[in-house]
Amino acid sequence: MLNVAILGFGVVGSGVYEVINMNKEKLSDRIGEPISVKKILDLRTFPGTPYESIVTSDMNEILSDPEISVVVECMGGSHPAYDYSMASLKAGKSVVTSNKEVVANFGSELLAEARKNGVKYLFEASVGGGIPLIHPLCECLSINNVEQIAGILNGTTNYILTRMLNEGLPFDEVLAEAQRLGYAEKNPTADVDGIDAARKICILSDIAYGKEVSVSEIRAEGIRNITSRDVEDAHKIGCKIKLLGYSRPDGDGIYCLVAPFFVPVENIISQADDVFNCVLVTGNAVGDVAFYGRGAGKLPTAAAIVSDITEAVLSSSCKLLWTKNNNKDYVRDPETLPGRLYVRFASDNASFITDTVSCEASVISEKDGKVSVVTGITTEKELKKSLCILEEKGIKAESLIRLL
Amino acid sequence: MLNVAILGFGVVGSGVYEVINMNKEKLSDRIGEPISVKKILDLRTFPGTPYESIVTSDMNEILSDPEISVVVECMGGSHPAYDYSMASLKAGKSVVTSNKEVVANFGSELLAEARKNGVKYLFEASVGGGIPLIHPLCECLSINNVEQIAGILNGTTNYILTRMLNEGLPFDEVLAEAQRLGYAEKNPTADVDGIDAARKICILSDIAYGKEVSVSEIRAEGIRNITSRDVEDAHKIGCKIKLLGYSRPDGDGIYCLVAPFFVPVENIISQADDVFNCVLVTGNAVGDVAFYGRGAGKLPTAAAIVSDITEAVLSSSCKLLWTKNNNKDYVRDPETLPGRLYVRFASDNASFITDTVSCEASVISEKDGKVSVVTGITTEKELKKSLCILEEKGIKAESLIRLL
Repeated sequence: MLNVAILGFGVVGSGVYEVINMNKEKLSDRIGEPISVKKILDLRTFPGTPYESIVTSDMNEILSDPEISVVVECMGGSHPAYDYSMASLKAGKSVVTSNKEVVANFGSELLAEARKNGVKYLFEASVGGGIPLIHPLCECLSINNVEQIAGILNGTTNYILTRMLNEGLPFDEVLAEAQRLGYAEKNPTADVDGIDAARKICILSDIAYGKEVSVSEIRAEGIRNITSRDVEDAHKIGCKIKLLGYSRPDGDGIYCLVAPFFVPVENIISQADDVFNCVLVTGNAVGDVAFYGRGAGKLPTAAAIVSDITEAVLSSSCKLLWTKNNNKDYVRDPETLPGRLYVRFASDNASFITDTVSCEASVISEKDGKVSVVTGITTEKELKKSLCILEEKGIKAESLIRLL
Repeated sequence: MLNVAILGFGVVGSGVYEVINMNKEKLSDRIGEPISVKKILDLRTFPGTPYESIVTSDMNEILSDPEISVVVECMGGSHPAYDYSMASLKAGKSVVTSNKEVVANFGSELLAEARKNGVKYLFEASVGGGIPLIHPLCECLSINNVEQIAGILNGTTNYILTRMLNEGLPFDEVLAEAQRLGYAEKNPTADVDGIDAARKICILSDIAYGKEVSVSEIRAEGIRNITSRDVEDAHKIGCKIKLLGYSRPDGDGIYCLVAPFFVPVENIISQADDVFNCVLVTGNAVGDVAFYGRGAGKLPTAAAIVSDITEAVLSSSCKLLWTKNNNKDYVRDPETLPGRLYVRFASDNASFITDTVSCEASVISEKDGKVSVVTGITTEKELKKSLCILEEKGIKAESLIRLL
């Protein structure tokens, strides 16, 4: 009998309980023994439910139970989730989680502790919900040098951008609607300001490039400033605006950022609409491969967790590992990332603008006293020199978005 | 030192050699020791190349070399590929292959032999080229009951269908062009008649449902009969025509077939164009997840093989396994698969047609003396009763395509 404990019995925790019971046969076939949830840690008591008798509010009951070999952490937040995870690993139990905050902040420590104790710390569910992404990246694709990761990592913002595009509605209106429908939180900051996506691109970059990137080191732009005009201009040149987590190696460092991008409709990422996630990984041997599915939700997330429970038991070698990064310049300034940019100016002086911008800008729309251009290959840093000159002449850039 | 032998030094075999040398450091990091190609089996001698000295035409040199622990089979065809694979497994060597014909025909035997000898038989590269597909299916998604697999599994036919749609060209013309460009073989049967896709959907079904399905048991329709009118009608109702491998469980059996389908443009599969592959797997917990990338090509295929080489060495438990299927009715008659169908009639008598078809057909186009309809949910078997009645009245169906 494989005994597991679930920490936190909210949406995801209860989903794990549900999936374990729903697919019992499949699971015991796979791991060679039956699986049972022996303890649930929660402050609530759930009277009258079938699991009432296994609920506890005392973590020590779980830590001191030698029969519990896997701890599923679905608490959210950094503390006490991190502390309980660490304590579980020290107690010789594998830990499986969907908690991207803990993985992004403390991943290298927890992985090292797991390795020290001959157990696992697994977190497939922390990025892309149920989409197999972390395992393929650190196993199937691991023989590749990863040349780029670009992905829609947050369903809420993708839903908002999809509605803005399809219905021509402004951001505020769609956000309010998403909040009414429960797709966005009352406090939407983590989603719309790109923080959630930042945690996820950090985790993917940790795995792909082997060094820990902290959320505080990367620039995360959200979608609050995206206007209908941006959406319309993107459409005009065969693109959709998507909030992407983006990273790629650069010498001994990496670029890593979260920002809205113009994504060409031929790129498979642009086809992931509504709450779907899609992550495109480019390897030097395999080329482009993409992973698509629901990036959140009770059962998809729980499915990834339950899959990790079987991994914790079955697979002998813990292949996940990255090191602390001691190089301050490891994460490059995104202003130096080469690429093309979309810029909209509050001015109708198109010829003066294209003459001033140093990098071959071409006009894509002129109306309502505004000019939108797409630059040739440049960097934000380079472009901003031209923008300064234009601003001195009273021509302000009101929107600046990268092209993928 | 991990020593491998490569059987067959064509496109894929030489790609494996290239990837091993290209990503040497990444590889030795992963497996904890350097990797080296010790022998290449080929009838050619490759004079003047850096690998000339390791080429042999004698399989026994490889079988009797105790230092070679992994054999990479890239020969193609059933024989001697199967025989050499079996001999390698019996000699205690793991075998990695991209040979879908051997896996589809002899997979259960080879997997059983590998297990008996404590080695591995791995074939990630046999379906979807470099796309991580088989490992995610048999690991990450394995705790799900798979409810459906639908995928574009053949790049050549997808290229042809994409060109037919985008350029409005007829099948024969695009095929001739694809042959000129080297995208299609001179003898295009395996691709355009769905045989290649059939092997692949059999392999995926073997893994997903645990019982071996042989290519001879399933119906494979190709794309030879797809006309511009089919493509146009599909477009009219928001679909693209894609050649899909399709399977789903049905009680104690499965449906499993290869056929052109109308795929709604909202479905991510429809967005995989040209030579790209895309496979959508629906699990009862995880929901829909899709895998996308180049389904063929030297380096992508080689990347999957090299990844399997590391799997062969690293992972202790051989999780791939399925059993022979002894139930003649395990694979269901595709004529009984419920769904909606597109039918085009060589007649302009729309009202008589819709009155006669028993399953709520709606007309989608009427022109050039032809009527196209889409039925409600029915089965081919049911529909064919109506088609018989119509044929007696001189109204022949000239096209019949499933909707996904």
